[in-house]
Amino acid sequence: MSKQWGGRFEKPTHAEVEVFTASIGVDGRLWDADIRGSVAHARMLGAVAVITPDEASKIIKGLEAVHADIQAGTVKFKPEAEDIHSEVERLLAEKLGPLAGKLHTARSRNDQVVTATRLYLRAQSDALHADLKSLQTWLVDASSGFRETIMPGLTHTQHAQPVSLGHHLMAYFWMFQRDIERLASGRVRINMLPLGSAALAGTSFALDRKMVATELGFAGVTANSLDAVSDRDFVVEFLSTAVQVVTHLSRLSEELIVWSTPEFGFLQLDDSVTTGSSIMPQKKNPDVAELIRGKVGRVTGALVGALTMLKALPLSYNRDLQEDKTFLFEGLDTTRACTRLMTLMLENARFNAERMKAAVKGDFSNATDLADYLVTKGMPFRQAHEVVGGVVRFAIERDVGLEDLTLAQLQENSSMFGADTLALLQPTAVMHARTSEGGTSPERVKEQIALARQLLAAKGD
Amino acid sequence: MSKQWGGRFEKPTHAEVEVFTASIGVDGRLWDADIRGSVAHARMLGAVAVITPDEASKIIKGLEAVHADIQAGTVKFKPEAEDIHSEVERLLAEKLGPLAGKLHTARSRNDQVVTATRLYLRAQSDALHADLKSLQTWLVDASSGFRETIMPGLTHTQHAQPVSLGHHLMAYFWMFQRDIERLASGRVRINMLPLGSAALAGTSFALDRKMVATELGFAGVTANSLDAVSDRDFVVEFLSTAVQVVTHLSRLSEELIVWSTPEFGFLQLDDSVTTGSSIMPQKKNPDVAELIRGKVGRVTGALVGALTMLKALPLSYNRDLQEDKTFLFEGLDTTRACTRLMTLMLENARFNAERMKAAVKGDFSNATDLADYLVTKGMPFRQAHEVVGGVVRFAIERDVGLEDLTLAQLQENSSMFGADTLALLQPTAVMHARTSEGGTSPERVKEQIALARQLLAAKGD
Amino acid sequence: MSKQWGGRFEKPTHAEVEVFTASIGVDGRLWDADIRGSVAHARMLGAVAVITPDEASKIIKGLEAVHADIQAGTVKFKPEAEDIHSEVERLLAEKLGPLAGKLHTARSRNDQVVTATRLYLRAQSDALHADLKSLQTWLVDASSGFRETIMPGLTHTQHAQPVSLGHHLMAYFWMFQRDIERLASGRVRINMLPLGSAALAGTSFALDRKMVATELGFAGVTANSLDAVSDRDFVVEFLSTAVQVVTHLSRLSEELIVWSTPEFGFLQLDDSVTTGSSIMPQKKNPDVAELIRGKVGRVTGALVGALTMLKALPLSYNRDLQEDKTFLFEGLDTTRACTRLMTLMLENARFNAERMKAAVKGDFSNATDLADYLVTKGMPFRQAHEVVGGVVRFAIERDVGLEDLTLAQLQENSSMFGADTLALLQPTAVMHARTSEGGTSPERVKEQIALARQLLAAKGD
Amino acid sequence: MSKQWGGRFEKPTHAEVEVFTASIGVDGRLWDADIRGSVAHARMLGAVAVITPDEASKIIKGLEAVHADIQAGTVKFKPEAEDIHSEVERLLAEKLGPLAGKLHTARSRNDQVVTATRLYLRAQSDALHADLKSLQTWLVDASSGFRETIMPGLTHTQHAQPVSLGHHLMAYFWMFQRDIERLASGRVRINMLPLGSAALAGTSFALDRKMVATELGFAGVTANSLDAVSDRDFVVEFLSTAVQVVTHLSRLSEELIVWSTPEFGFLQLDDSVTTGSSIMPQKKNPDVAELIRGKVGRVTGALVGALTMLKALPLSYNRDLQEDKTFLFEGLDTTRACTRLMTLMLENARFNAERMKAAVKGDFSNATDLADYLVTKGMPFRQAHEVVGGVVRFAIERDVGLEDLTLAQLQENSSMFGADTLALLQPTAVMHARTSEGGTSPERVKEQIALARQLLAAKGD
Repeated sequence: MSKQWGGRFEKPTHAEVEVFTASIGVDGRLWDADIRGSVAHARMLGAVAVITPDEASKIIKGLEAVHADIQAGTVKFKPEAEDIHSEVERLLAEKLGPLAGKLHTARSRNDQVVTATRLYLRAQSDALHADLKSLQTWLVDASSGFRETIMPGLTHTQHAQPVSLGHHLMAYFWMFQRDIERLASGRVRINMLPLGSAALAGTSFALDRKMVATELGFAGVTANSLDAVSDRDFVVEFLSTAVQVVTHLSRLSEELIVWSTPEFGFLQLDDSVTTGSSIMPQKKNPDVAELIRGKVGRVTGALVGALTMLKALPLSYNRDLQEDKTFLFEGLDTTRACTRLMTLMLENARFNAERMKAAVKGDFSNATDLADYLVTKGMPFRQAHEVVGGVVRFAIERDVGLEDLTLAQLQENSSMFGADTLALLQPTAVMHARTSEGGTSPERVKEQIALARQLLAAKGD
Repeated sequence: MSKQWGGRFEKPTHAEVEVFTASIGVDGRLWDADIRGSVAHARMLGAVAVITPDEASKIIKGLEAVHADIQAGTVKFKPEAEDIHSEVERLLAEKLGPLAGKLHTARSRNDQVVTATRLYLRAQSDALHADLKSLQTWLVDASSGFRETIMPGLTHTQHAQPVSLGHHLMAYFWMFQRDIERLASGRVRINMLPLGSAALAGTSFALDRKMVATELGFAGVTANSLDAVSDRDFVVEFLSTAVQVVTHLSRLSEELIVWSTPEFGFLQLDDSVTTGSSIMPQKKNPDVAELIRGKVGRVTGALVGALTMLKALPLSYNRDLQEDKTFLFEGLDTTRACTRLMTLMLENARFNAERMKAAVKGDFSNATDLADYLVTKGMPFRQAHEVVGGVVRFAIERDVGLEDLTLAQLQENSSMFGADTLALLQPTAVMHARTSEGGTSPERVKEQIALARQLLAAKGD
Repeated sequence: MSKQWGGRFEKPTHAEVEVFTASIGVDGRLWDADIRGSVAHARMLGAVAVITPDEASKIIKGLEAVHADIQAGTVKFKPEAEDIHSEVERLLAEKLGPLAGKLHTARSRNDQVVTATRLYLRAQSDALHADLKSLQTWLVDASSGFRETIMPGLTHTQHAQPVSLGHHLMAYFWMFQRDIERLASGRVRINMLPLGSAALAGTSFALDRKMVATELGFAGVTANSLDAVSDRDFVVEFLSTAVQVVTHLSRLSEELIVWSTPEFGFLQLDDSVTTGSSIMPQKKNPDVAELIRGKVGRVTGALVGALTMLKALPLSYNRDLQEDKTFLFEGLDTTRACTRLMTLMLENARFNAERMKAAVKGDFSNATDLADYLVTKGMPFRQAHEVVGGVVRFAIERDVGLEDLTLAQLQENSSMFGADTLALLQPTAVMHARTSEGGTSPERVKEQIALARQLLAAKGD
Repeated sequence: MSKQWGGRFEKPTHAEVEVFTASIGVDGRLWDADIRGSVAHARMLGAVAVITPDEASKIIKGLEAVHADIQAGTVKFKPEAEDIHSEVERLLAEKLGPLAGKLHTARSRNDQVVTATRLYLRAQSDALHADLKSLQTWLVDASSGFRETIMPGLTHTQHAQPVSLGHHLMAYFWMFQRDIERLASGRVRINMLPLGSAALAGTSFALDRKMVATELGFAGVTANSLDAVSDRDFVVEFLSTAVQVVTHLSRLSEELIVWSTPEFGFLQLDDSVTTGSSIMPQKKNPDVAELIRGKVGRVTGALVGALTMLKALPLSYNRDLQEDKTFLFEGLDTTRACTRLMTLMLENARFNAERMKAAVKGDFSNATDLADYLVTKGMPFRQAHEVVGGVVRFAIERDVGLEDLTLAQLQENSSMFGADTLALLQPTAVMHARTSEGGTSPERVKEQIALARQLLAAKGD
């Protein structure tokens, strides 16, 4: 195949080298972004008279025709193409002849590639943003319904204090909210136009870079051409945010898996999102949750890969950077798929409130309230903690829960306990008592949900 | 030692377990943040009458005395202490007796620890921000002096087009500027108060969390208690930014190392920031640059470590999270030290403008200008690229640079070349010709520097 | 402080650079290995007459005296020392004067450092090997006792088929056995002597490297001096094995944590290896298991750090390599501590066989046996699987287990079921039926244990 | 599509879940290994009379026909297939009808998948082994030719002592030799048969696992069924070795890139393995070396991904493990491609011995020899180092190399210098003087090469 750069070379590229250096298998998906970038570039070249208005018009029409062909599926990318950018230009040349050669004036693949990558990632970042909002919407709606549903709240995977299932689900809302904030913050650094930086040093043509930026919706133009062609910070930053998303999803998946065991029995996943076993006819497996949990490794791996690639890389463009898209797309696709599948799985889940409620009974997760009671009677907290530790031992020896003790039994442990102690030991009372801001009492959860709905409704985010 | 939680336990902790679970060797540095958090907590407990004003006042005075003792070095932390938080409380109890036990009312170590971590990290993040500004200041000042200093601009580590040394150095300014933006963005998510979330579910005491937030300078309070005690996103986000900083530093280090070779000779590092060899008396080694380059692995490792820790961790607090500080401090300390040492090394570097200028001569990095010339005469760029490829071969065969060719020789290759071709092939002319926005022409570099100075002067960032 | 390399330097090292480049805080632990290496070097220098026998003898006595001083704690390393190697030489010079300067003949810190590191790691690798054997010994002994103890065997964290607890514990035996094999394999590549490679190119002194290797117990000498001073493969390889060890430990920890929940209730950890809560008096937390699980991140981080350090590092020695010890010691210490603490935790654990047995009842984990029964009657497995899927639904609708169905009920689903079906549905029968090699039937577990005991008894491994 | 496990499910799998959980896009390449495993399984089922000899024979013939169809390209895998294993069985059923359903007797996908993975990896590991031998062969042959070719030996990327290019290249031989040893060691742990472990617990059918192992060339059978289906150690171990291979390749790539700069000029890569620029007609870029350097991130990422997947995963099989193949194939393909391309690039490289020799002149890399000279005259090494440091300064002030100093000038610095000093300062003499075992003197390099050729010729490795 004719290369874009054959002029001074006396030997053709070795066939294995062609395969090794080609990237169209990875970057083919950038065709739309590449063409949009080229259209804007051509229009600008015409406007500043580097090419004639007529040439610009023909090139734009040609690009639009190539775009239509690809969209319609009437052309196939040649597998031996070097990358999508040379392939688009080849398709353009088929339509326009030598005039196609004017499109590349005042640009280089170095700035062209990264422009297309930024355009593509901007849209995908917004799409992930929307995916996360869908998941958040389910979480808020579900939480609203489960505000009064009591369940064991765990620390160290041990029963600690009863919480509302709605409160528990809302914890994830806030994780994803921070991810959304990070996406929004990182978008600012994606959304700068590198085109016009040429190979590394800028160009002598009198370009109007801001015109291109405006057409393509970029907030501004990059300030330094060397930096513009070698910067992949935005890839690392996106992957850093993506890995937080999938880490959050892995935490939620782990909970869904454990809750689906017969021992916990808090949750039943729907047939439509579970799978069976080729050998054990009784099995119903939470495969989706497991795969989400396992796929976190892909995004972590992609992030580490990108960082490894960049370590100690001198300025400016180096071919190492071609690998950026492998890492980026791997992280992006995985994160989007996992987010969407989590939403789908949750939409089809049934929570078992009875089992959750039963699990709280007699589990000593009301012990803190007993200690707090003594504190309100004037005992220093550390001492109250000791006393209640003794009450817990006392109850365990009798094989009952704290709420099953009589007042007399309580008073054997401390005379400070009064008749009002009994009521506050009921699990529901314990949950309702957590009235501090951000606490699990249903009233506070209601506040949280209201705030969350405001954030969901906010445009821009 | 007496534990904060011994009540229901019948056997003492095994000695090896004590050592394994203790964290004071790592978290001892949080003493100041811990005490500040406790002072604010005590003041609030007094204000909302959970303890009496007099108790609050005594506890605060006691905490201030403990603070003074630690600052003065008159107390040593016990190596067998479980963590800094229990150690501070022990020191307080030495001063106040049982009253010290009231301090822990309505809080848990789960919210206490993460409050101290956030306070500490907020200050350290700001300190790194300042370190980066110092480095940027050197870069801008140096760039200003080197605006007209010509050097080979590289792509693929091959001479591509001549650039200004000032332009090259400014490329790093923008990398660190993005790091600063990321720090500022991440600070928003550090700066929320978790205290008041208690163990996991909030508390029944009627706290005023906003009062504590205000005293400690937090922008608000966390919205969900389960999330508050299990969230370490801010650690991952900080490390994600830190790893970008050190990656940038590793790229600059690589360049400084290569420029310091006798083959390049672009740079001489000062005796004060280099070291010698125990065996080879002639050696002067760029150890600082090498160590910075090598230490990028520590921050990458810390980030991966934190992500591994969080993978599939269920809600809410789990002891795994104690490791967060190991990762955080490792990444933080390394990043700050590398940033400061880079600044010191650069402040003591001498650039060799003569060697840089000589390197550009005859290196064919003016070939693009020859192609662009043909384009302005109407030849499509792709064709011009082919023609100039031929000229390059022509010159290589005669062992001369493009700027050494005569007009007649040029015209042997294309009759389109005119007398005005010769001047534009001079390297300095080539550099000056890159006048597109963000390009390397000294005028454009001047613009960049002016913009950079504005950003440096902006407060808040 | 006087450096080992000041000769051609006109300015002293900057104080911050001294701190940044110093490594004694990390490599101080190599003092013993360093001195042993120096003793062997000195003895050989004497033997080949590079120094006189008398000089060699005095240097060796001096080194032994330094060794004794350090061991006795009568000397403190200067915190401003560059590294342990220069510090040992300084201490030697205090005893011997200028004669100490002859020790460094025909060696460089480049080969000296890596010799000490290999000596140290060889011993530590053997110590980890022994730690793993202790853990394996507990596993084999426990498995022997629990051969007949039935518990739910899980796939997808769902009940799949009943297994023996002994079989389950033995699964970990084999994981650690592979780790031991990897340690043994990696030891071969640790155990080569680099000393004599000097700075990078060998030396003109007529050394007897094999003599040094023999004294220090190395299996041979490295074959290429450039490789010898820049090779850190053995660090990466050790960390690769270590990360497998802690990954295995994290899997076991996860199981211990889940088994300790009240929902599972399979396990009770001892008071001596658990901790309580500062706020919740009832808590007994599996902190050791949680910390082991969390610390896997440290070893993964150390491995990634070492790989990042080595990426694209040219030959031969570069100062980046100094970071190797930070990564190595972090990974090593963590892995050894986690292994020992796991053993301690298990030695103090009580398994609840009643709860395990109860969990298997009615859990449909005998469904495969029902399908296999049909297969033995001639039905293709795929069809049998379908039929039994129907039986499972049938039983679920009646809220009973498969073992609770009557023969008539079974035959409603397939007339192929005979009277002999009922017995094979009993959980214990199911476990005993898994008689294929490596299966969970107690007889097969006995075989496994016998094989394991042979491996444990084998010397060398 | 009909699933292998539909029996008890009332709803079909959601279409998005089908896509998310399907793996045929990744595991399709296992078709050959899967069929070979099934053939052996069927033959054994026949031999032990679980199925009839005739059934076994028909199934084997059917599988061979499916194999032939796939090899001939006459069947296409359905993209909606769950995985390659169910797809092969579907193709078999097309040929055999219900009889195909008997193949899956006494096995599960859990043991089937990992058997195919091990078979495939064993062959690929051997292929990588062969790739590495080809690279080593080039290194040995080239080193043999370059034994006397002098070049600067670097430490800290600074000239240290002259070395032989042959010695330098041989350094890489030993790196790859260690990789080969690691591959051979890891192969032992790949080469165990898991088939017969069934889903997790073994099976009640009286299998002959050793017969299957023998047919498939495995050295033995796995000892514990739970471990067998959940073990992915061999994936991590292979990736750990692969990442060392690519790390070594990245180090060599870095050197090739730097040596190809005009400043160094040590190397000219062939047109056939370099590429040009779309904008700069003069460029000849070492893209292959750059891509190899950049791709190290992929293998590091794959290793981290696999470790992340495995962290804290309970026994036994979990769907997370399906991701293992993504990580494995990514690491494997990248490592093999990089190894082969490196060989190709080197086979087409020209080294510039003149430039290398010129670089050594006057570079002070003979300073150690001057110090060693004084040592042989009786001066302690440390003092000699100081004196020679002074001589270096003396020469630099006069702008000459050490070999350009007159005897009188040397004696100004120390009266110990004699007339014999001058000869030993010649760079070639310096290189020849490094006669210690493993040193760079051509005689020693010859020894190395002889040893290397023995290793290359050894079969088995």
